[in-house]
Amino acid sequence: MAEEIEARIERSKRESIFKINPNKPLRANLLITDYFTNIDQVTQSAFTGSNTNMSKLKQFMMSPHVLNPSILLALSILGLTTATLGFIMDFAIQQLQHFRFYLSNTGNYVYDMGIWISFSLVTCTIACALGLWTPSVAEGSGIAEIKAVLSGIKINKFFNFSTFLTKFAAVTLAIGGGLSLGKEGPFVHISGIVAHKISQFTIFKHIHRNLTLRNQFLAASVAAGIASMFGSPIGAVLFSIEVTATYYIVSNMWRAAFCCIWCTVGYQLLQSARVNDGINNTHFKSIEVTEELFFFFLLAVGAGLMGAIFIKVSRKLIELRYTRAYPMLHGRFRYLILITIICSAATFITPYLEQTDRSVINDMFQTHDATDDGWSKTNFGMNLLIYMIVKFCITILCVSVQLPAGLIYPLLTCGAVYGRLVGYLVEQTVGTEHAGIYAAVGAAAMVCSTTHSVSIAIIVFELTGEIHYLVPMILGVFVAAGVSSAITPSFYDSILDVKKLPYLPSLKSTELYSYVAKDISDVEFPCLQVNSSLRALTNAVLEGISTMNKIPVIGDGRILKYDINIENARIYISTHYASCISQFSPEARAQLDRFFHFFRGIRPESFIEGTYDSFLHEEEEVEEVTEFMNNPINISQRSLAVDDSPFSITESTPLAKIHFLFIMLGLTQVYVTKKGELVGIITRDIFVKKLHN
Amino acid sequence: MAEEIEARIERSKRESIFKINPNKPLRANLLITDYFTNIDQVTQSAFTGSNTNMSKLKQFMMSPHVLNPSILLALSILGLTTATLGFIMDFAIQQLQHFRFYLSNTGNYVYDMGIWISFSLVTCTIACALGLWTPSVAEGSGIAEIKAVLSGIKINKFFNFSTFLTKFAAVTLAIGGGLSLGKEGPFVHISGIVAHKISQFTIFKHIHRNLTLRNQFLAASVAAGIASMFGSPIGAVLFSIEVTATYYIVSNMWRAAFCCIWCTVGYQLLQSARVNDGINNTHFKSIEVTEELFFFFLLAVGAGLMGAIFIKVSRKLIELRYTRAYPMLHGRFRYLILITIICSAATFITPYLEQTDRSVINDMFQTHDATDDGWSKTNFGMNLLIYMIVKFCITILCVSVQLPAGLIYPLLTCGAVYGRLVGYLVEQTVGTEHAGIYAAVGAAAMVCSTTHSVSIAIIVFELTGEIHYLVPMILGVFVAAGVSSAITPSFYDSILDVKKLPYLPSLKSTELYSYVAKDISDVEFPCLQVNSSLRALTNAVLEGISTMNKIPVIGDGRILKYDINIENARIYISTHYASCISQFSPEARAQLDRFFHFFRGIRPESFIEGTYDSFLHEEEEVEEVTEFMNNPINISQRSLAVDDSPFSITESTPLAKIHFLFIMLGLTQVYVTKKGELVGIITRDIFVKKLHN
Repeated sequence: MAEEIEARIERSKRESIFKINPNKPLRANLLITDYFTNIDQVTQSAFTGSNTNMSKLKQFMMSPHVLNPSILLALSILGLTTATLGFIMDFAIQQLQHFRFYLSNTGNYVYDMGIWISFSLVTCTIACALGLWTPSVAEGSGIAEIKAVLSGIKINKFFNFSTFLTKFAAVTLAIGGGLSLGKEGPFVHISGIVAHKISQFTIFKHIHRNLTLRNQFLAASVAAGIASMFGSPIGAVLFSIEVTATYYIVSNMWRAAFCCIWCTVGYQLLQSARVNDGINNTHFKSIEVTEELFFFFLLAVGAGLMGAIFIKVSRKLIELRYTRAYPMLHGRFRYLILITIICSAATFITPYLEQTDRSVINDMFQTHDATDDGWSKTNFGMNLLIYMIVKFCITILCVSVQLPAGLIYPLLTCGAVYGRLVGYLVEQTVGTEHAGIYAAVGAAAMVCSTTHSVSIAIIVFELTGEIHYLVPMILGVFVAAGVSSAITPSFYDSILDVKKLPYLPSLKSTELYSYVAKDISDVEFPCLQVNSSLRALTNAVLEGISTMNKIPVIGDGRILKYDINIENARIYISTHYASCISQFSPEARAQLDRFFHFFRGIRPESFIEGTYDSFLHEEEEVEEVTEFMNNPINISQRSLAVDDSPFSITESTPLAKIHFLFIMLGLTQVYVTKKGELVGIITRDIFVKKLHN
Repeated sequence: MAEEIEARIERSKRESIFKINPNKPLRANLLITDYFTNIDQVTQSAFTGSNTNMSKLKQFMMSPHVLNPSILLALSILGLTTATLGFIMDFAIQQLQHFRFYLSNTGNYVYDMGIWISFSLVTCTIACALGLWTPSVAEGSGIAEIKAVLSGIKINKFFNFSTFLTKFAAVTLAIGGGLSLGKEGPFVHISGIVAHKISQFTIFKHIHRNLTLRNQFLAASVAAGIASMFGSPIGAVLFSIEVTATYYIVSNMWRAAFCCIWCTVGYQLLQSARVNDGINNTHFKSIEVTEELFFFFLLAVGAGLMGAIFIKVSRKLIELRYTRAYPMLHGRFRYLILITIICSAATFITPYLEQTDRSVINDMFQTHDATDDGWSKTNFGMNLLIYMIVKFCITILCVSVQLPAGLIYPLLTCGAVYGRLVGYLVEQTVGTEHAGIYAAVGAAAMVCSTTHSVSIAIIVFELTGEIHYLVPMILGVFVAAGVSSAITPSFYDSILDVKKLPYLPSLKSTELYSYVAKDISDVEFPCLQVNSSLRALTNAVLEGISTMNKIPVIGDGRILKYDINIENARIYISTHYASCISQFSPEARAQLDRFFHFFRGIRPESFIEGTYDSFLHEEEEVEEVTEFMNNPINISQRSLAVDDSPFSITESTPLAKIHFLFIMLGLTQVYVTKKGELVGIITRDIFVKKLHN
């Protein structure tokens, strides 16, 4: 028992943070932000601690180098795993789609339609039913939630294995069954779960234990998720930055890129089996800067407006479902069945709409007239227009159902058709050779106007294998993003808002910013004296564990002196008990065992506040135990890892500054002092709550 | 006089920071970091201040929006100006090169060689002589210095117009005269100067006055400088991030990208005049993930090693020049003439080396056998090998001379030849169809291994107009960067080191990190009481102006209460004087006028510390003046803009934490307190100095 705990402390000391060998000069191009992204983690001991008791190999593996081998290994595994999972999902979806085609090919129009719709109903109902057994976090795209997690919010069960299974199966069934949904968003969540599980392997435990590394690893997994869907590493890295970050530590960009390379290599190797469809490289004619750019400008304005409409309408639908305003329509299954029927009927009736998104995109991106692909049977322009309108509408509907649902691929398709339509009109009136480029720009502009991430342009470059139509493309995405963001926040931000996730960075109202620290700080919180007893420490831990991360320690006259990490305090108390246990009488030992069994089992996220005294309240305390608990704690003991420079602000600090500090320093809590005396505390949770109300 | 000062205060209040209209709800997707990137600037008044006395148009122009029109306008002007300047420089260099060819085409080998070398000597000597009349900051690439400036260092005369002229002329003459140098680095500096000048226009003054905006504008100019050289906006933005930033506020990425679009549009419009050569779009065959990747891996390892050698040797040469170890060799002109003769003789003798970098790159990137370009006259492989070795050596020599000198283009050329050589060897032994792709990867890998910026891959994608050879390319740059950075810091970091520029972020030695705030803080500094007199304020301003940014104000028992920006204090004092001036007797007025003439003319960067009393020491103070100067200051007056929550840390804060705070919060100074009492101050300058010694 005692050894186990001792070993745990040793481990946590060694692994909680990189150790830097003090005998070795540092290389000039290492930055402090390569080690830390969070002020709470910045400790002197990382620089001055000795690590001579580690093996050479272990030292090398743990060295705080951008090229740290254990992190690179973890990233490679993550990349390859994600690529494989993406391939499997892709394959399953395609098989389902083919099977549906095969079944509904009897030749009788009414029969076929019936089978087409029934197939959809069955698969989508199963997908929806899967959600009944698993946490509700498996719903929706997941990108909004990842954004919240990266900003420091804990979401219950978000990284569970059951969430993974549900999400994987439900997405496959829903898209395979014919709903107009994308798999990118959900897949980002899936790869996030994979990253979480990989970081819990024994050899990568130090990644999991270090908040900075854990978050960087998670951010890399977002990029890997996108990369394994498109095979586009550069675009994926930029997309992950745009969608998830407020500020970005540059060195992490290369970690994400490294992960994405493995992902792309895996993707291309698997793709070479030619089982799954892909998007073909294009051969557009070179385009120069001419007055034709004006049409691209118009195209982008249109895409921006459509994107804004998409966000507004789908947000409204999701909001209605959340608020249960119309229970008739928004029951779990009723709504889904309604939408599935509308969607599959529409795809059956509308020409070309039963085709997969990828084949439509391939058709649109073609440089020749596309007359031989059947798109021109009646009227090419009219076909494009109908396809675009129907696709746009059913995508809005499908995004609002209670299923894991992405939106990038359907919108990419819709945008490609829209762009091609504009290209066709230009071709017919003014004349152009670049109809394919219009389609590519339209696709990117449409996605950009809903997600507000300009990096989709690079993803499209990577998909088409060409980059020479840079100017119209960038013009397109920027104008589309500008138009749309002048009207509404992005789709992901809207979802964060609807779901009331406590995402930190957004500014809600100016009124709030007239507050200062004094107005929002909590004045009741557990707090220790320098010479507190073990009992006081235990009580403080039990009181604070569910809301706080660290306990402040005050000296004479409430001067703030130190703070103690609650987890370290728990380990300290347990060790102290374990080292003394042999001296106790059986009676005392039994009582302490009972308490420590409870104490060690506490899980911060589900614990409801209590104290040691309330735990004891049924039984009388044995005298020996009283004596033990009244021992003063030794504040200088190494295992307590007391921080002697807790981060504090004055009472008059304005809210804007506190907000800035929380974002830039990754704080979990900040102390409010008045003339050096501790008068309050602002935890991240309190702050976010105040910001939202 | 008084009106002018009042107007100045009004203006500074209005323009120093964005104002947010309190009557308008904020949009949810605005982040606090869109307004501020520096804790000192975070003020409550930005959120609560009223701005009803501004015109509607002005309000719109000043609104703190990512799409803020005045900033977008400034960025567009910057982009277009940079593109035009880049074009002019390109044109001038090409004309010089053609002229040199024309002159040295007499048919007589010895005559030709003489003319070839003399031409070089004349232009390069003029280029070098230009440096005699202008600041030494015009030397070198300028990227290292920009990096330092962005991290908060002030470099004297760095943004002068004369620096601009020298740099522009010297680069044109040196490259036109045949030295193996690049114009990218110097051009980044040139576009930085352009940005500085644009931000000083009356309508953009608010950009110049706001540190956050000013730095973001400067960062955008780095991207624009690269974009106007290559016509590659995406790669340019990423390059600017990599080379200059530690962490990056994501919203600024789009500002830089916006600027680069204008730059690229301008570049392409000017390029369509077909006056200057460009790099042609390529038509590589698609490459799949096969065992051929192994050869790319080998290629990258080789490029990494060559890059490391390049950095080590050129650093040594520059260091020797700086330390003047061998005066014989390192006189300004002697060394230049020596190098010029070596370089131009080598280019004349070695086959193909007299060609321009661009035409060589075009040859290397070709997919066919290149037999018809004259490269195969004797032995293709041998020609490539000789070219590569000679180019590599003369580039090292040229980079070390005392001229504005970039290194990207020569290294790109050298790398392309190296890559083609590897491709040729693979072609001859194993067989491959992708010799052109080897050249492209080699080019990127070589640049990447010296600059450690992976984004050169994207620049090469944009140059070739294709992106489908993504996997070998990214493998190449990552391996090259890995190999090289395992051996040495990047070229730019080496230069920062040699020049001893006080660049903040690098970690030098672990020993330092055993220090705490107490050990490095300054205990003697100007400091005010709450009820200080005007005399005390004036003295504090004069004492602190050259080293500090703000003056602390203490209350009873040295409790830190406020701080005052020195510039605001200066304005406050001047206004106070101007508002009282009419009451004074002529004698007093004359004395005060004398003092205020001196006081208002002080330039912080060149002022040597003094006090009001020492200024007066020759003359006796008039009684009225004494009375005036002994007036207490009004701390709550709006024009003083007192900050009531100065940022302070405790005495025991470890150096690592302080380092982290300086980087993440953009601090210029931090107060050290003990039980709330002010005991010391750490300014950025002190901190950087301690970090370097």
